[in-house]
Amino acid sequence: MSLWFDLIKENPAGGRRGRIHLPHQTVESPVFMPVGTQGTVKAVAQDVLESLEAEIILGNTYHLYLRPGHEAIRRMGGLHRFMSWPRAMLTDSGGFQVFSLSELRKVTDEGVQFRSHLDGSSHFFTPEHSIDVQIALGADICMAFDECTEYPAERARAEESLRLTMAWARRSLDHFRAHRDEVVWREAFDGRTQSLFGIVQGGMYRDLRRECAERLVEMGFDGYAIGGLSVGEPRELTQEMIAEVLPLLPRDKPRYVMGVGYPDEIERYARMGVDMMDCVLPTRAARHGLLFTSEGRVNIKNRRYAEDQSPPDPACDCMVCRRYSRAYLRHLMQAGETLSGTLNSIHNLAYYLGIMQRVRGEMEEQGPGNGD
Amino acid sequence: MSLWFDLIKENPAGGRRGRIHLPHQTVESPVFMPVGTQGTVKAVAQDVLESLEAEIILGNTYHLYLRPGHEAIRRMGGLHRFMSWPRAMLTDSGGFQVFSLSELRKVTDEGVQFRSHLDGSSHFFTPEHSIDVQIALGADICMAFDECTEYPAERARAEESLRLTMAWARRSLDHFRAHRDEVVWREAFDGRTQSLFGIVQGGMYRDLRRECAERLVEMGFDGYAIGGLSVGEPRELTQEMIAEVLPLLPRDKPRYVMGVGYPDEIERYARMGVDMMDCVLPTRAARHGLLFTSEGRVNIKNRRYAEDQSPPDPACDCMVCRRYSRAYLRHLMQAGETLSGTLNSIHNLAYYLGIMQRVRGEMEEQGPGNGD
Repeated sequence: MSLWFDLIKENPAGGRRGRIHLPHQTVESPVFMPVGTQGTVKAVAQDVLESLEAEIILGNTYHLYLRPGHEAIRRMGGLHRFMSWPRAMLTDSGGFQVFSLSELRKVTDEGVQFRSHLDGSSHFFTPEHSIDVQIALGADICMAFDECTEYPAERARAEESLRLTMAWARRSLDHFRAHRDEVVWREAFDGRTQSLFGIVQGGMYRDLRRECAERLVEMGFDGYAIGGLSVGEPRELTQEMIAEVLPLLPRDKPRYVMGVGYPDEIERYARMGVDMMDCVLPTRAARHGLLFTSEGRVNIKNRRYAEDQSPPDPACDCMVCRRYSRAYLRHLMQAGETLSGTLNSIHNLAYYLGIMQRVRGEMEEQGPGNGD
Repeated sequence: MSLWFDLIKENPAGGRRGRIHLPHQTVESPVFMPVGTQGTVKAVAQDVLESLEAEIILGNTYHLYLRPGHEAIRRMGGLHRFMSWPRAMLTDSGGFQVFSLSELRKVTDEGVQFRSHLDGSSHFFTPEHSIDVQIALGADICMAFDECTEYPAERARAEESLRLTMAWARRSLDHFRAHRDEVVWREAFDGRTQSLFGIVQGGMYRDLRRECAERLVEMGFDGYAIGGLSVGEPRELTQEMIAEVLPLLPRDKPRYVMGVGYPDEIERYARMGVDMMDCVLPTRAARHGLLFTSEGRVNIKNRRYAEDQSPPDPACDCMVCRRYSRAYLRHLMQAGETLSGTLNSIHNLAYYLGIMQRVRGEMEEQGPGNGD
């Protein structure tokens, strides 16, 4: 088996304290996964991610396929080795980026024709091709190729989109099963290999979400994601969709909500029973000077911090808060210094990872007992 | 005394293995000083500089005066505290940047009127003001306000420029002596305070250089710099000017050549008897993808490195060379990732600091005996 999930404790509200055993790392869950789009979590070096105790990070298939190319990465031993990241990794399917970044998309049942946002070159992605690319990259967890339904979407549009996602999920899984043993690091890990997660879509229609979840579970993926959220809908709707889907997913498989969210959101969803989350928010906001702190959001560009010698977050003991002041971080931002994005990102990631650490600790303390 | 210099060993060729005792740090010399223009060595965090064993870094008075402002920095406890750098620091006088970066300069005997390159605001720098700003910043070593003679310069122009530099050196020293005890950290360091170095100018005229050196030595600075080099002249001329000046400088004071140079240059000048050097080259070149290695210069953008899995410098054991490949560094550069500048800068600084470390070691081994 390439992935197994230990349910250490289950709380009355549904929260799960678990452990996801992956070839490169055993990941304590619920877990927040920093996003490393182009083979780097922007502005943060790998040794710093390790010291922040990040156990799993994301790579973006669309970006890495275009540059440096998945075949080059395979030849160099896979993404772990290419970027020197020894812990766990997950790649998305490329689907979301094809829809959000590329140009001149043409979607058919077969797949998606698109032009690269980098150089306008023409490409064709199918479920099979997405899986081939992900096997070349060699992350511990791959994702099925799906269509992310936009928001808002009419029911007919959501149904059609779901039909595509379901067909592509089937093809993704079949192709993955036929080729998963080809991952470059398999022998070094005693024959263990990659895992594949299915993605629940269905727009904001509860019945479509249910239908999707049930059919994916029948197919038997290694884990299940809920996609198509945080696409502009109100938060209540996000939460409603998650609450609708979670009970339908197998208790012994990891559950992943993609692309969320703000600190209060990741905490809430973790307590509802979501095991994995990822989001560009902590790093992207950091580069724009927005810090998440125990005292709320701090826009470090604000003039009021010009001579503020207190740490970014007085309650935080990350390497940035232990060493630098708000005034210094503001200065770096004002001066356009690269170190600004680095230090802000390190703090925000520490804050996000710290939330999950705290939630895991609280889950261990409370609840009716062992989930096993 | 605020600075004292231990001459541990002197070599036949003139090279000096020494120790510069400064309030914040005892610096092993000859030493290379990374440049931290705006209160940060670009793209490299302070803890990384520490792990690279950088013992002294530069700050640029012109930049810090304009942003965030020297008074703000003084109120926050000085530059060491502001940027959280506990080791030694040196500030330049602002003179060079006023001449190279600002607009609409007007030079009189009194000082220099100029407009900020940031917002066009008008400013007036005198020797006294430069010293006031440097005392507010609070580096361990301050520099006299000078005029950097351009290259090429006619003899009459070089003489006039030298006249200004000499008058400004006198005024810098008088003002410094009257106010040096005002540095904000003085009490915390048992009454020790900042030091002031004079700067030898004189263009490429040997007799002017000699005259300048002799008169500065009469004034009695804490150390002596040779400025106005690496301004476009051929290397032979740089070396000739250094060779001309060094024998005139007191044996028991540190000697600093400003703004040089390439790896072979800093090694050569160190062996000639230069104790301190600084240059933006290792960090600036790094951001443009140029790595200095034991195998020569590596332009990491080059296509030939696309799948090169060897380390940037096979003979280097810095944190970058131990962990990452040329292919990965090339990818980061191609993808426009911030981490590119960071990792390239770390390696180049490690390379420069490593040269000085090696030279110091060799100086200890060889030579006729103890310099004391």
